[in-house]
Amino acid sequence: MSQKLRVTVWNEFRHEQESERIRAVYPNGIHQVIGEGLGTEVEVSYATLDEHEHGLTEERLNSTDVLIWWGHKAHGDVQDEIVQRVHNRVLHGMGLIVLHSGHFSKIFKKLMGTSCDLKWREAGEKERLWVVSPGHPIVEGIGPYIELESEEMYGEHFDIPAPDEVVLVSWFEGGEVFRSGCTFHRGQGKIFYFRPGHESYPTYYNEQVRRVIANGVKWAAPTTRDYPQYGNSEPLEPIKAKE
Amino acid sequence: MSQKLRVTVWNEFRHEQESERIRAVYPNGIHQVIGEGLGTEVEVSYATLDEHEHGLTEERLNSTDVLIWWGHKAHGDVQDEIVQRVHNRVLHGMGLIVLHSGHFSKIFKKLMGTSCDLKWREAGEKERLWVVSPGHPIVEGIGPYIELESEEMYGEHFDIPAPDEVVLVSWFEGGEVFRSGCTFHRGQGKIFYFRPGHESYPTYYNEQVRRVIANGVKWAAPTTRDYPQYGNSEPLEPIKAKE
Amino acid sequence: MSQKLRVTVWNEFRHEQESERIRAVYPNGIHQVIGEGLGTEVEVSYATLDEHEHGLTEERLNSTDVLIWWGHKAHGDVQDEIVQRVHNRVLHGMGLIVLHSGHFSKIFKKLMGTSCDLKWREAGEKERLWVVSPGHPIVEGIGPYIELESEEMYGEHFDIPAPDEVVLVSWFEGGEVFRSGCTFHRGQGKIFYFRPGHESYPTYYNEQVRRVIANGVKWAAPTTRDYPQYGNSEPLEPIKAKE
Amino acid sequence: MSQKLRVTVWNEFRHEQESERIRAVYPNGIHQVIGEGLGTEVEVSYATLDEHEHGLTEERLNSTDVLIWWGHKAHGDVQDEIVQRVHNRVLHGMGLIVLHSGHFSKIFKKLMGTSCDLKWREAGEKERLWVVSPGHPIVEGIGPYIELESEEMYGEHFDIPAPDEVVLVSWFEGGEVFRSGCTFHRGQGKIFYFRPGHESYPTYYNEQVRRVIANGVKWAAPTTRDYPQYGNSEPLEPIKAKE
Repeated sequence: MSQKLRVTVWNEFRHEQESERIRAVYPNGIHQVIGEGLGTEVEVSYATLDEHEHGLTEERLNSTDVLIWWGHKAHGDVQDEIVQRVHNRVLHGMGLIVLHSGHFSKIFKKLMGTSCDLKWREAGEKERLWVVSPGHPIVEGIGPYIELESEEMYGEHFDIPAPDEVVLVSWFEGGEVFRSGCTFHRGQGKIFYFRPGHESYPTYYNEQVRRVIANGVKWAAPTTRDYPQYGNSEPLEPIKAKE
Repeated sequence: MSQKLRVTVWNEFRHEQESERIRAVYPNGIHQVIGEGLGTEVEVSYATLDEHEHGLTEERLNSTDVLIWWGHKAHGDVQDEIVQRVHNRVLHGMGLIVLHSGHFSKIFKKLMGTSCDLKWREAGEKERLWVVSPGHPIVEGIGPYIELESEEMYGEHFDIPAPDEVVLVSWFEGGEVFRSGCTFHRGQGKIFYFRPGHESYPTYYNEQVRRVIANGVKWAAPTTRDYPQYGNSEPLEPIKAKE
Repeated sequence: MSQKLRVTVWNEFRHEQESERIRAVYPNGIHQVIGEGLGTEVEVSYATLDEHEHGLTEERLNSTDVLIWWGHKAHGDVQDEIVQRVHNRVLHGMGLIVLHSGHFSKIFKKLMGTSCDLKWREAGEKERLWVVSPGHPIVEGIGPYIELESEEMYGEHFDIPAPDEVVLVSWFEGGEVFRSGCTFHRGQGKIFYFRPGHESYPTYYNEQVRRVIANGVKWAAPTTRDYPQYGNSEPLEPIKAKE
Repeated sequence: MSQKLRVTVWNEFRHEQESERIRAVYPNGIHQVIGEGLGTEVEVSYATLDEHEHGLTEERLNSTDVLIWWGHKAHGDVQDEIVQRVHNRVLHGMGLIVLHSGHFSKIFKKLMGTSCDLKWREAGEKERLWVVSPGHPIVEGIGPYIELESEEMYGEHFDIPAPDEVVLVSWFEGGEVFRSGCTFHRGQGKIFYFRPGHESYPTYYNEQVRRVIANGVKWAAPTTRDYPQYGNSEPLEPIKAKE
C-alpha cells in the first residue's frame, strides 16, 4: 500500500482544447504540467470538468489527500452537487490548493463566504512575489522573491476573509499589489490560495512556482483525527439542579 | 436627519408565540428585549420572519447600519433570496451581530463557509464568559468575566474559521469551553458572533450582556468608503512591451 | 474637564535642527506638522527627546490617551527607564501610533519582540499604499490607495510578528512591497504602525496621510476597563479534594 | 550524519534537587521525562541552568533545531546574554517550545513583548484541554480533549499577543479558562506555548501530553532558507529622477 500523499489535480481543461495559442503553452492541459511539477514524492492523478461527475466521484475524493484546483471560464458549469461534495471533504480534512483564476470557482467562494472579487489586467506584465512569512513551510527553499516576466495582473482589493497567514505578496509592473499566497483553515481542512498561473504564460514550468505548490501540498496534508462529534452532549461534570 | 446608528433587530419570533413558557420570559418577543437593551443612543427598529420578505426589504436593509440576528428553529424558512440580499449588504458594509442559535442561520453559514456546528446541551447550567482580549471595544465597561446562572451549553469544537479576534471564552459547569465572542470581517462588513441568549432564560435582561451587544453594535458600524472597484483595470504605471 | 482624546506627539527633533534641508520641510519640527494634521477634535501636546525625561514624565504619560512616536537616528539616546515607562502605559491601555523610522525605536522593538528590521532605500521614489482591509476604521474616508510622489522605500521582509490586521500594503517604484499599515494589541493597549513619513519629504502635509493618522488615533483610544488582576486566585467553584 | 531533528530540552533543574516531593515525581529531573516522551524519532540532548552558560553555548544552540524550555522559580538567574543568544537563534529559525511556567521566562517575555502574566492557583484541580483547531498538526492523533486529574490552574486573562493560532483551550474545575496551546511566529522561528506541566504532578508521563509536545517539535522544525537580507538595497526596477 502506498504511503505517498495522494494528490488529484483538477482542471477545467477547455481553453487548451479550444485555443491553439493556449495549447501551444500547455499541449496536454495545464493539469499535466502542474502534476509533473509535483515530482515523484507524491502520487498524482487527474480529473477534468468534462469527465463524468467532473472526475470527482465520491470514491475519487475519498482517496484524495490534497486536491489542486485550476479553473477559469467555466466555473458555472461545475455542478452544485459536486461542489457540495468537495466542500464536505475539505471540512473533513482534505487539503485544497486553489490556483490563480480558481479564486472565482464555486468551491473557493463557498469556503470563503465572500465575493472573492479582485482587479485584473491581461498585459503580460512583470510580477514579483515577495516572501512576507519567512519561516513558513510553504516557502521552504524559496529566495526573498519569485520573479515572473509575464503574468496577468491581480490587484487589491481581493475580497477574501483575512487569511490565517499571508505568505507571499505580489508587486506588479503596472502599479498594483496583491496577497498572492494565503492560507486558511476550514473545518479540519487546510486551504492554500496561490495566485500565479494564467493559461497563456508558461508559469507552471517555473521551478520556484513548482516548489511553492509542492510545499503547499505537504502543508495541506490531512491529519489523522476523527471528525469532531457535534450535537447534543452529556455533561462531563455534575450540574447543580436549579430551583 | 438622524445621526444615530440605525439598528434593525431581527427575530424568528415563533417560539414566543407557540410556547407559554417562552412567552413568560419574553412576552413581546426576544427582539423587543434585545432592542430595549440597546438604549436610546441608537435608533432601533424590528423585523421578524413572518413579515413580508421577513421584514428585510431592500429599502429596510439599505437604511440599516447594523443588523442583529436571532433565530432558532426555523432557519430553513428564511428564503434564499433574502439571505443573498443580507449577504450582499454585509459585503457592502452593514454590520451584523449574530446571537446564540443564529450560529446555524443561513446567513451566518454562508458568511463563514463552514458547517458552524457545535456541541450543545439544555441543562440550565452555569456559564462564565471570560474576557481574553481586554483592550477590545466590545468589552468596554465589562469586568473580568460575565456570569450567567442558567444557560444552554455550547461546546467546542465550534466549526467556524479562525476568528479575526476572540474576545470572550466561556466556561460551562458541565465541563466544556466555547469561543463565545468572536469577530470577523467579510468584505466591508464587520460581524460579531455572541453566544449567550437561549430563549428560555432571561439572558437579554442581563446588564453586562446588554452592554456587550451595545458595544458590538458600535464596533460593527459601517465606515464611509465607496465600495471597492473590481474587474478589468488600466495600469497606473507604464508596462514594457515584451517581444 | 475636557472630554477630548489627549494625544501626545513625540519627536526626536534633532535632524530638523541640524540640517537646513530638513528644516526647510519641517521648520518647527515634524511633530508640529503631525499635530496640526490631527485637527481640533483631539487635544494635542508635544514632547521631544532633549526635554527632561524626553518630555515623557509619569504625569504626562498618565494624562496621554494616545502617544504618537517619530524617531530616526537617535533611538539609542532614549533611556531604557523611559522606554519601560511607555511600555507599561501601553499594556495598561494607552494607544501608540508608531510612524515610519520609529520601527527601529526601542519601544516598538520591545513591544514586538523581533528585530523589526527591513530593506530600505533613499531614492525619492513613488509609493502607492493600497487598502487591503476596506472596512477598517483606520481607512475611513480613504480611496482605494494613497499615492506619494517621493518617499523613502521600505521593503519586505519586515521582521515583525504577524499583525493582528494588515490594513495597507505599499507598492514601490523600485520593485518592492511593504506591509505599511499594521495593527497590534499588546496588553490593554492598541498599536498602529504606519510606514510613510521620511523627514526630507512633505508627507505629513498630505491630507490622506493625515486622515489615516487621525483615524488611527481614534482607533487606538483606550477603553475604560480596570487593568486585569493577575496572580494567585481563589477558586470560583468548589474543587474536589483528591486523595 | 543524522537526519533526525535535534532537540535540546532545557530545564531549570533546581526544584527536583531541593525538594523530595518533586524528586519523587521526577527523580532525574523534568527534562529527562520530557525527553523520553519524545521517542526515538528525534535526537534528544539536555541542558540545565547550573551548567556553564546554562548549557546553551553558541555551539550547542547552533546544532539545535528545536529548543524546549521548562523553568519555574529561577527565571531571574538566566543571564541576559544567553537570553539574547536564544532570541537570536529563534529569529534565525530555531523552533521553541515553551512549557507551563516558562510563560514567565525571560526568553518568552522578550519574544512576546508583553507581561505574560496570568491568574494561577495550586489546588490540584482537574483540567480539560479542548481542541479548538482540529486540523492543526499539533493535535494530530489527539481526541476531542485531554483530561488531567490534577494540575495547577492558569486562568485568563493571559497577557500575550493574540496568538497566530489557538489550538487548545483549557477548562478548570475551579471555574476558569485558559488558552493552553498557542502558536507564534517570530522572525524565521516558530514558537509553541503549551500550558500543562506543574512540577508536582506527573503530567509529562501522560501519553497525550507527550504526543502534543512531540507534534509541536515537528511543527516547529526550521525551514531551510537563508536569513533575509535587511538594510540598504538597490532598486530592482528603474526609478524616475524627480526634479
